[in-house]
Amino acid sequence: MYIVKALITRRPSILDPQGKAVEQGAKLLGFENVGNVRVDKRVVFELEASDEASATKEATALCDKLLANPNLEDYTFTLERNNGDA
Amino acid sequence: MYIVKALITRRPSILDPQGKAVEQGAKLLGFENVGNVRVDKRVVFELEASDEASATKEATALCDKLLANPNLEDYTFTLERNNGDA
Repeated sequence: MYIVKALITRRPSILDPQGKAVEQGAKLLGFENVGNVRVDKRVVFELEASDEASATKEATALCDKLLANPNLEDYTFTLERNNGDA
Repeated sequence: MYIVKALITRRPSILDPQGKAVEQGAKLLGFENVGNVRVDKRVVFELEASDEASATKEATALCDKLLANPNLEDYTFTLERNNGDA
């Protein structure tokens, strides 16, 4: 079993409204030194796969088809083998 | 100037509806081997601070007061010094 940690980020050229909202909130709270806020999504999941190659293939397909919006977002992920049976 | 990368995670004991939605979507798309999905938030921002101690203090305050919900979420963050003027 693998633990997949996928990080989905908006491309730098694309406006990030959630980041803008956080930045505005920070300034309203008096955090004047905060800037250029971006909010990314990290998705962690367990994946049953026979080997690393098939885990990579399946995680890539899941990112392409569900987790990331190919028009706006990029993604990277890491795989960790989880040897425990629990 | 520092680049702060904060990771905000729901406590494991707390239900993650967004993760459940992703898991259901994955299964509907035929990804049967995916389980225990959790969706975390990563917030990246620039922080003007004179030294690492004050950057840590300000980033902690921002996480406590804005980024993380203390009832449901935990957070960690890393600081990177950005020496470039650009």
